[in-house]
Amino acid sequence: MDFLSEFLTLFLGKLQSPTLGFLIGGMVVAAVNSRLQIPDPIYKFIVFMLLIKVGLSGGIAIRNANLVEMLLPAAFAVLIGIVIVFIGRYTLGIMPKVKIVDAIATAGLFGAVSGSTLAAGLTILETEGIKFEPWAAALYPFMDIPALVTAIVLASLYITKQKQRRAAEEQLNKQLVAAGGYPSDKGIVARGYPQSDTADEGVKIWPIIQESLQGSALSALLLGLALGLLTRPESVYESFFNPLFRGLLSILMLVMGMEATARLGELRKVGQWYALYAFFAPLLHGFIAFGLGMIAHYITGFSLGGVVLLAVIAASSSDISGPPTLRAGIPSANPSAYIGSSTAVGTPVALALGIPLFIGLAQVLGG
Amino acid sequence: MDFLSEFLTLFLGKLQSPTLGFLIGGMVVAAVNSRLQIPDPIYKFIVFMLLIKVGLSGGIAIRNANLVEMLLPAAFAVLIGIVIVFIGRYTLGIMPKVKIVDAIATAGLFGAVSGSTLAAGLTILETEGIKFEPWAAALYPFMDIPALVTAIVLASLYITKQKQRRAAEEQLNKQLVAAGGYPSDKGIVARGYPQSDTADEGVKIWPIIQESLQGSALSALLLGLALGLLTRPESVYESFFNPLFRGLLSILMLVMGMEATARLGELRKVGQWYALYAFFAPLLHGFIAFGLGMIAHYITGFSLGGVVLLAVIAASSSDISGPPTLRAGIPSANPSAYIGSSTAVGTPVALALGIPLFIGLAQVLGG
Amino acid sequence: MDFLSEFLTLFLGKLQSPTLGFLIGGMVVAAVNSRLQIPDPIYKFIVFMLLIKVGLSGGIAIRNANLVEMLLPAAFAVLIGIVIVFIGRYTLGIMPKVKIVDAIATAGLFGAVSGSTLAAGLTILETEGIKFEPWAAALYPFMDIPALVTAIVLASLYITKQKQRRAAEEQLNKQLVAAGGYPSDKGIVARGYPQSDTADEGVKIWPIIQESLQGSALSALLLGLALGLLTRPESVYESFFNPLFRGLLSILMLVMGMEATARLGELRKVGQWYALYAFFAPLLHGFIAFGLGMIAHYITGFSLGGVVLLAVIAASSSDISGPPTLRAGIPSANPSAYIGSSTAVGTPVALALGIPLFIGLAQVLGG
Repeated sequence: MDFLSEFLTLFLGKLQSPTLGFLIGGMVVAAVNSRLQIPDPIYKFIVFMLLIKVGLSGGIAIRNANLVEMLLPAAFAVLIGIVIVFIGRYTLGIMPKVKIVDAIATAGLFGAVSGSTLAAGLTILETEGIKFEPWAAALYPFMDIPALVTAIVLASLYITKQKQRRAAEEQLNKQLVAAGGYPSDKGIVARGYPQSDTADEGVKIWPIIQESLQGSALSALLLGLALGLLTRPESVYESFFNPLFRGLLSILMLVMGMEATARLGELRKVGQWYALYAFFAPLLHGFIAFGLGMIAHYITGFSLGGVVLLAVIAASSSDISGPPTLRAGIPSANPSAYIGSSTAVGTPVALALGIPLFIGLAQVLGG
Repeated sequence: MDFLSEFLTLFLGKLQSPTLGFLIGGMVVAAVNSRLQIPDPIYKFIVFMLLIKVGLSGGIAIRNANLVEMLLPAAFAVLIGIVIVFIGRYTLGIMPKVKIVDAIATAGLFGAVSGSTLAAGLTILETEGIKFEPWAAALYPFMDIPALVTAIVLASLYITKQKQRRAAEEQLNKQLVAAGGYPSDKGIVARGYPQSDTADEGVKIWPIIQESLQGSALSALLLGLALGLLTRPESVYESFFNPLFRGLLSILMLVMGMEATARLGELRKVGQWYALYAFFAPLLHGFIAFGLGMIAHYITGFSLGGVVLLAVIAASSSDISGPPTLRAGIPSANPSAYIGSSTAVGTPVALALGIPLFIGLAQVLGG
Repeated sequence: MDFLSEFLTLFLGKLQSPTLGFLIGGMVVAAVNSRLQIPDPIYKFIVFMLLIKVGLSGGIAIRNANLVEMLLPAAFAVLIGIVIVFIGRYTLGIMPKVKIVDAIATAGLFGAVSGSTLAAGLTILETEGIKFEPWAAALYPFMDIPALVTAIVLASLYITKQKQRRAAEEQLNKQLVAAGGYPSDKGIVARGYPQSDTADEGVKIWPIIQESLQGSALSALLLGLALGLLTRPESVYESFFNPLFRGLLSILMLVMGMEATARLGELRKVGQWYALYAFFAPLLHGFIAFGLGMIAHYITGFSLGGVVLLAVIAASSSDISGPPTLRAGIPSANPSAYIGSSTAVGTPVALALGIPLFIGLAQVLGG
């Protein structure tokens, strides 16, 4: 039961972290009907500051990385980031009473990368004397940003389909009623036709992707990425965006907590699915990444330490870059669902169970 | 005249401090009809940032303190914080033409604690080689926060009573007029009844306390206190809330100065009462605290250095935590009254007169 | 071609600086129709923060300077700051299709001072072992602030005249039409009279200067200057206004870039005039300052190193203090015009051509 006590210690420690502390604080503030409020322009600006920082740090990391050497692992990282979202969409998302947008947002958060889990992995690898490429840590934005973009686009697609379906149904019902027909009767027959016409074929994917990319969330993220890649924003990043990040994040958490209270009830009947997903997803994602990493190991000589890091990156779920992006990109998703799953269960599992597992695996394979 | 010159030097130095400098700057800006403005959402957010920082630092100080050992001095600190507000309410508040809410706010500021005065006290005690408990400085939030809460609740109570009285009188006048009676005549007789009924008995204290605590000012303060006590916000406190504090305070001072110009005239006829209060209150508060501290000295062995610190904490008036709290919690009080009294007179008196007095007293008593 | 390659390197480096990077980023964001926005209250507050910082740093520099000794060079600096704006108004401003307000704003930016160009000048002087007065760098606010104030007042004067002229013409046309006359006919005769009456004599200069000074831009600038001069804001300057400056400036640049896209077309036909002005103005301004500096050299013994610094200050164009001031003070001017001219051409010319030129000149004259 050594693992269990370690897990519980991490779990309790996480509850005291500023991130979760401010989230719970916001929930309490809302629960006692306080009139405390963060003005909306401030909230929007905080989200912008957080997203551009996430983009900048990703862009700077990629610019400083050895792109040729890391080509295959980076491509695998992108692939894993995208696949994780689809896995979440079609496992968690199909559980009874789980809302699809909540599932997509949660999967997006588990595809995104936690800087602190990554740092823990780096530290343990160094302590154990396992070698890895110096650019291996720079793989994280290749998984982080595709996962968040995929989640937002997938959610937009789903929401648009839903709207069109509903609109089509309403129109159909009107037609039926107008024609004096019996809606309950002919409805079954008639419904099939407009569905396949407007909902499945009619939804054009590219306009929705474009629309998602033009949204304020992905715009800020990609702007930061481009500025980090193409210009030299290090001075302003180190003196401004990075130092303010944790503080602004704590305020965002407060706002999300204040909103979460009202939506906590939604989770009462589905909490077990989130707990289950959050427990197994980090390990599953880590194993997928470990497998792909081993392929890169045999093809390009990617180090075993690098394989472990890729697995840790995949196992980690973001409590930093993810929440502001998802909050702005999928506003209809319930923050209590995805933040709760990630910080309360996913991160402790990745830290206490994932990292030792992948390191042990690498040591066995490396002989 | 050594004291007088020292006092004047401190007084002039205070006028050049950023806190008072920005206040006066704001007054000048308003006086020359500048169109300079701080947008309202920014102002609200600045107040929030200041209040949560005050709460956090109090909470962290209490969490790190030895609660069992400091029980009696801490209880005395709470008591002194509350008593100071009532003293101000019933001395300054009953002077002719002094507005009650201004008096309550001023007393709240004199009950709150100045970090810089406390630091000066600590430095002098160390220089003089007088011993004190390491947790003695952590007594300040036990006085600071109760004083501010008491002031806001007392002001809310007073304002609610006033409103009810006025409403009752208006209704009475309407009834009299509606009945065709002579208002001037019967008014005197009739007035007594509804007053005692609605204004004195009718005001329920608990809903008003609850209402005050739900207000944005005390909510932010208590949220910060709770987060400081129950979570580990040190990283975000040190990297965000604390470094931004002085700068945001200077901007708040600018806003308060801009507002103060319009209300400076109110003080013309009552300035002498504020000066008198601000001169004697720090000494009186310090002596009360010194007396209670001596009781703790004889009962629990509280050190004489600790007694001096308790007196210094009581003598100090906050130019930091107080203004934003009172501005948001008692918006109808005139900031020129309370900030002017505290920074221009109260703090120099506490520093130049209070600290040497209490140290001398302790040295005499300690033999 | 050593100069050309050096110039191109500097030019490309400038394009990667955070200042210009965020400007171009903003232009791209707007060009792809992103919905990214910086809320208006945030934008206003950022401008305030930048302006008060510029004022504070100027005020602190002047307070710490030896005013008696630097009297003549400082007076020359003020003079040069004002003259530069008039030169720009009557050279760039009279080119075909160049808008007068854009020309005034550009001249204001070339009159304002670039901290980084000044720092480069100081470094090179020290490397070459050329002596200069320690207060010489403190001459910059004496040129910077008068240039910006002159530009804003000149633009206000021009805009007011234009409005009055247009109003007078409209009224005249109405009168003519009302009287049944032929507007095209009598218009020529009649127009002369009201023009000279209302537009030239009728515009009172002092109310417009007062109005400009009361505007939010100059108010914030002068408030900062006064606070820097008269109080001791160093603590809050070092801990708050200065560290936040570069970051907030980058966000302002983003906003200005987003606005610039829409107005870039305006410059298509006049770009060559801006390029020409931006290439020659730094050298011309530098030579004027060098000449006046030599007068101070012969009268008061102002060092030759000081003369070089005065010339560098005059040759530099502000990419820091200028943009926020001009954006808020002359909102109708096109930011693409003045920022583009300054950062893309003016600053590289001053650095690569101006500094070596003035140092060489001083070495020739100093024997």
